Amino acid sequence: MYVLVIGCGRTGSSIASLLSKQGEDVVVVDRNKSSFRKLSAKFTGFTVLGDATEIEVLEESKLDKTDLVVVTTDDDNVNAMVAQIASEIYEVEKVVVRIIDPEKKVIYKDLDVMTMSPTSLLVDNLIGQIGNWSKE
Amino acid sequence: MYVLVIGCGRTGSSIASLLSKQGEDVVVVDRNKSSFRKLSAKFTGFTVLGDATEIEVLEESKLDKTDLVVVTTDDDNVNAMVAQIASEIYEVEKVVVRIIDPEKKVIYKDLDVMTMSPTSLLVDNLIGQIGNWSKE
Repeated sequence: MYVLVIGCGRTGSSIASLLSKQGEDVVVVDRNKSSFRKLSAKFTGFTVLGDATEIEVLEESKLDKTDLVVVTTDDDNVNAMVAQIASEIYEVEKVVVRIIDPEKKVIYKDLDVMTMSPTSLLVDNLIGQIGNWSKE
Repeated sequence: MYVLVIGCGRTGSSIASLLSKQGEDVVVVDRNKSSFRKLSAKFTGFTVLGDATEIEVLEESKLDKTDLVVVTTDDDNVNAMVAQIASEIYEVEKVVVRIIDPEKKVIYKDLDVMTMSPTSLLVDNLIGQIGNWSKE
């Protein structure tokens, strides 16, 4: 599988490193060169330095050949824009976006992309755990 | 159950609002008054304005009577300090801490606290989802 990861922060670098380890072909895009240091030493994919809202950067990252795009920058608006370009213009089959502010989820209601909110995941997890405790 | 939530950002305010809705007695601490606006309109608990690393603030929040402390500030070092005070000095039975940087998990290895990392949750979730896709 050809995977494009947008944003090489903690989340993006972890995902890119894990998928590379699993044998996927991974390309990571970030506009700060130093971010690529977070990738695992065993990362065998490519890194592209640039702003993912620029079409040339996405072209260089071979967005048109991508099976899965994972969008993880710290900016919900950038993420929404990249996800929309990937899904609607390049017709990438699988697009996953991290949502920082859970209220931003509405942006994606008409787009064929999967959203994941770390805040919601944490809250759900904790509420589930509290439910288990109260059964003890 | 008497629950103390430290930090009223997105995570803290969501947890406090949900637990209050579930009928728990909730106290939320934050050092910025404006953070309390994130609480649900139906929140029926108490808010304490102050720095949770100060003992007086923790005393005012009745840490000694707390069944569960959920520590969610944006600072891993503050979180570690508050979790340690709650667990070791006040002997609170259940302490849950959000970890921003997954590498900080080591701080907690000798403490009887539960850690939750939104980054790790998101990465695990996504990797699981990709596993499901590849079975399709």
